Amino acid sequence: MPIVEAHILEGYSPTEKSRLTTALTDAIRFVVPAPDEAITVMLHEYPSEAYARGGQHRKPAPALPDPTQIVRAYLAAMEARDLDTAKTTLGVGFQMVFPGTRPMTELSELIDWSKGRYRFVKKTYDGFDALHSGGVAVVYARGTLYGEWMDGTPFEGIRFIDRFEIARDKIQRQDVWNDMAEVRAQ
Amino acid sequence: MPIVEAHILEGYSPTEKSRLTTALTDAIRFVVPAPDEAITVMLHEYPSEAYARGGQHRKPAPALPDPTQIVRAYLAAMEARDLDTAKTTLGVGFQMVFPGTRPMTELSELIDWSKGRYRFVKKTYDGFDALHSGGVAVVYARGTLYGEWMDGTPFEGIRFIDRFEIARDKIQRQDVWNDMAEVRAQ
Amino acid sequence: MPIVEAHILEGYSPTEKSRLTTALTDAIRFVVPAPDEAITVMLHEYPSEAYARGGQHRKPAPALPDPTQIVRAYLAAMEARDLDTAKTTLGVGFQMVFPGTRPMTELSELIDWSKGRYRFVKKTYDGFDALHSGGVAVVYARGTLYGEWMDGTPFEGIRFIDRFEIARDKIQRQDVWNDMAEVRAQ
Amino acid sequence: MPIVEAHILEGYSPTEKSRLTTALTDAIRFVVPAPDEAITVMLHEYPSEAYARGGQHRKPAPALPDPTQIVRAYLAAMEARDLDTAKTTLGVGFQMVFPGTRPMTELSELIDWSKGRYRFVKKTYDGFDALHSGGVAVVYARGTLYGEWMDGTPFEGIRFIDRFEIARDKIQRQDVWNDMAEVRAQ
Amino acid sequence: MPIVEAHILEGYSPTEKSRLTTALTDAIRFVVPAPDEAITVMLHEYPSEAYARGGQHRKPAPALPDPTQIVRAYLAAMEARDLDTAKTTLGVGFQMVFPGTRPMTELSELIDWSKGRYRFVKKTYDGFDALHSGGVAVVYARGTLYGEWMDGTPFEGIRFIDRFEIARDKIQRQDVWNDMAEVRAQ
Amino acid sequence: MPIVEAHILEGYSPTEKSRLTTALTDAIRFVVPAPDEAITVMLHEYPSEAYARGGQHRKPAPALPDPTQIVRAYLAAMEARDLDTAKTTLGVGFQMVFPGTRPMTELSELIDWSKGRYRFVKKTYDGFDALHSGGVAVVYARGTLYGEWMDGTPFEGIRFIDRFEIARDKIQRQDVWNDMAEVRAQ
Repeated sequence: MPIVEAHILEGYSPTEKSRLTTALTDAIRFVVPAPDEAITVMLHEYPSEAYARGGQHRKPAPALPDPTQIVRAYLAAMEARDLDTAKTTLGVGFQMVFPGTRPMTELSELIDWSKGRYRFVKKTYDGFDALHSGGVAVVYARGTLYGEWMDGTPFEGIRFIDRFEIARDKIQRQDVWNDMAEVRAQ
Repeated sequence: MPIVEAHILEGYSPTEKSRLTTALTDAIRFVVPAPDEAITVMLHEYPSEAYARGGQHRKPAPALPDPTQIVRAYLAAMEARDLDTAKTTLGVGFQMVFPGTRPMTELSELIDWSKGRYRFVKKTYDGFDALHSGGVAVVYARGTLYGEWMDGTPFEGIRFIDRFEIARDKIQRQDVWNDMAEVRAQ
Repeated sequence: MPIVEAHILEGYSPTEKSRLTTALTDAIRFVVPAPDEAITVMLHEYPSEAYARGGQHRKPAPALPDPTQIVRAYLAAMEARDLDTAKTTLGVGFQMVFPGTRPMTELSELIDWSKGRYRFVKKTYDGFDALHSGGVAVVYARGTLYGEWMDGTPFEGIRFIDRFEIARDKIQRQDVWNDMAEVRAQ
Repeated sequence: MPIVEAHILEGYSPTEKSRLTTALTDAIRFVVPAPDEAITVMLHEYPSEAYARGGQHRKPAPALPDPTQIVRAYLAAMEARDLDTAKTTLGVGFQMVFPGTRPMTELSELIDWSKGRYRFVKKTYDGFDALHSGGVAVVYARGTLYGEWMDGTPFEGIRFIDRFEIARDKIQRQDVWNDMAEVRAQ
Repeated sequence: MPIVEAHILEGYSPTEKSRLTTALTDAIRFVVPAPDEAITVMLHEYPSEAYARGGQHRKPAPALPDPTQIVRAYLAAMEARDLDTAKTTLGVGFQMVFPGTRPMTELSELIDWSKGRYRFVKKTYDGFDALHSGGVAVVYARGTLYGEWMDGTPFEGIRFIDRFEIARDKIQRQDVWNDMAEVRAQ
Repeated sequence: MPIVEAHILEGYSPTEKSRLTTALTDAIRFVVPAPDEAITVMLHEYPSEAYARGGQHRKPAPALPDPTQIVRAYLAAMEARDLDTAKTTLGVGFQMVFPGTRPMTELSELIDWSKGRYRFVKKTYDGFDALHSGGVAVVYARGTLYGEWMDGTPFEGIRFIDRFEIARDKIQRQDVWNDMAEVRAQ
């Protein structure tokens, strides 16, 4: 039954407002087992002149980009080995950890590291999860890998999960887990 | 600046209301880059007699349990090899997938599978993420493993991540990734 | 989908609040074809100290009595020929019009008028409708009459409808239509 | 003092919104004896993109037509013996009951029935009452009849009341009471 | 932390709405020691068709003019000895009291009274305070006077304070205090 | 017509809430010429557990004391020459300016200064005005003085006005104007 009213400044796009109503609906559903039909979210939008904090009229902050879209763009660029595009999605101080690696800060390190491991790898996605937590957006991407080992043998169905932290519209951190070593050991 | 009003029936505990205000604050922060101080959440609570849907007064649905607490209880019981307690947290049709395993449905299968792998393993947690997504609560637990291999050699610092799906107050699914095979292969 | 919030002073009973949520739900349904489940009514109740009009704190006006209950009490008393009780429900200046009568102001007039018409009459109710209109509560009672004619012949199933106006907690006017003359003429 | 806020989707006409504010005002007045000046109704209107139920954006349901207007159109057409127009206001399964008749379903039955009773009849209205009750709109029309008996004698001032049920924008049922038989018997 | 929602009819200018949000912010600050940043004011604006009091749609009353602007215009005109302009700001029944004078009703009286006191006087403002109190707007202007005594000696830094009452958009009363006599006596 | 809702934390006394509803009513009246009866103020009060800013539950700040009461207490103590009590109402850095004086910081300076001017003086109040402005509460007290000159001659009806600034619950500044010199010069 919960009903949510959110008061925001005018200026958000329909898509941004949909993201907001969805996030608020999920927030309620996280705690209250109401049927979806019973959860209503309404956005009150105020022009700047009708809204004041501390006596000052305010401008709306631009909405945060959808972090899942940022992650998808990064993953697509990496799969295409388009490092220039991939780099545009990374923040200063970006770090990534892959199975068995130390933290790497350059995409080229990753490329070098992977060279001895497989000829190529591609991802099939089972799902994404995204949330805000402790000041950053966290995105999980999971699914399976397919590609070719160094000897040309194909592989597929190897489970993976990536965890990303996004802040200031850029990816700050990537952590990767997968079953490659497990599969190779078999 | 966003301000959120949620209208709920009376009867939730202070802890449950805190979970709700936190979830709503995070929902806003997921989309709007407002400073935390500028996000206010207010809960209007109604006695049943002051709330009607479809002309009928309503009782509040009991709050969902905190899924992270369910996951922590399960993981603690498993670490202590207290399978009876662990089972109380699992739903009918529970499935788990570990690196290199097929889906298992019984905790005893897991125990058997692990017997040839290590003498014992324990977890150090780096963090938990939890969200509602598509009708289920999703909880991620991540950190590092320490323990002893079959030959008595100790190990530590092996990265892991677990993903849980919780519905109807029970864990329905567990997916596990870690670097054990990677480490053993080195 | 409409959601209604009504702001009222504290002090109304659960029954009075139910009457209010029902009346507001019906008001919405009169204009908007929403499914009942999609209409939510919430009452905000304020203690006097938290509510001011014109800078003055206010006390809640006692709720109006349910006019249908007043009408039922009057009709029951009349059927039992308990004129003293019936009179307590009538306002100063009460008028009633029956088929073929001029306006009557005394219940004894009605009794006299009916004496030549039937030995007794009782009512079976098909339904009541009640609403506020133009400053008064209007109640309709409809159903069928049964009883005995002057010659002892029983009758039944004679349609009737009564219309009442209630103001200042008293019945101010009663208008009666029925098929008695139609039936007698057959 | 009550203040009512109704939250609706954008798209209703000024007339429809007036019907809604009036219905809500009357709903309050049905229970609370506040002076009219002290009852305020405010409509919050949301574009579809700012409103979500169950996480889905919604379109406003078209407003229900004013049932009193439907009844007036039907009564005017019947008085003018314009049966084709009158039929457009009737729902499938329409029934009508007149004094002394069995339920009729065709307007032509009514015309036939009335042929032996009067040359013509017309209505002067004293008032209409309309409300939503139990899933249907109910409209009462009351006043007096005038016309000519079969022998050319004029009559006037004969009380009548009609009760209509409207659902799915059509009249489903008409019940009529009047003093014709009473007057003829005198 | 307080959050204020004001519900008003559409039609006020941005400046008028700013005056309203400022006045409401100050009203909160008068009672609650919240940091300014924690006080939010939001204006809900309703078109006439979405707002009804006593069942009647309403037009917004034109905003009251800023009383401080009226006082500033009056003081500027008086300083420039532009009595015609000054008079346009005065209400019927205007009264003014200066140090040692009886109530005067005509600006020319004031000019005559001042003729024996100084050649000219001008004002430097330290500040204005304005509020609504008991049905009128009250404006205080304070600062120091400079000018020339009758003998040509200049003076400056003489403290003054003026109190104005404004009603029906006009100044109804002016009360003046200053240290002129004190300074002359020294 | 304006309606004001203020959302505050629970814990304010009825008197404090009355001060708040009055201040908000006056704020509206400062800008909108609505009849007093048409201005409604409603306070939503939240227990700490139902209110969160930045995800943190909050405690209500104690209400500011009524600055007019502080000023009245100070003026009464000064009139009674009870300097100890008067001092309790003064802030660190308190300053006062009287006609013809430099800023004084000690009440004893004021007493010394007045010794050569009159035997005693008392105040009759015509009114108080109070408002929040620029971070401080401002209180005006005005009326007339009566007492005895040094030679025993009584005086009365001498106009005065005092302006006070109150911050952190203490009087920070007092500015006094009156017609004493004017009267003595006559």
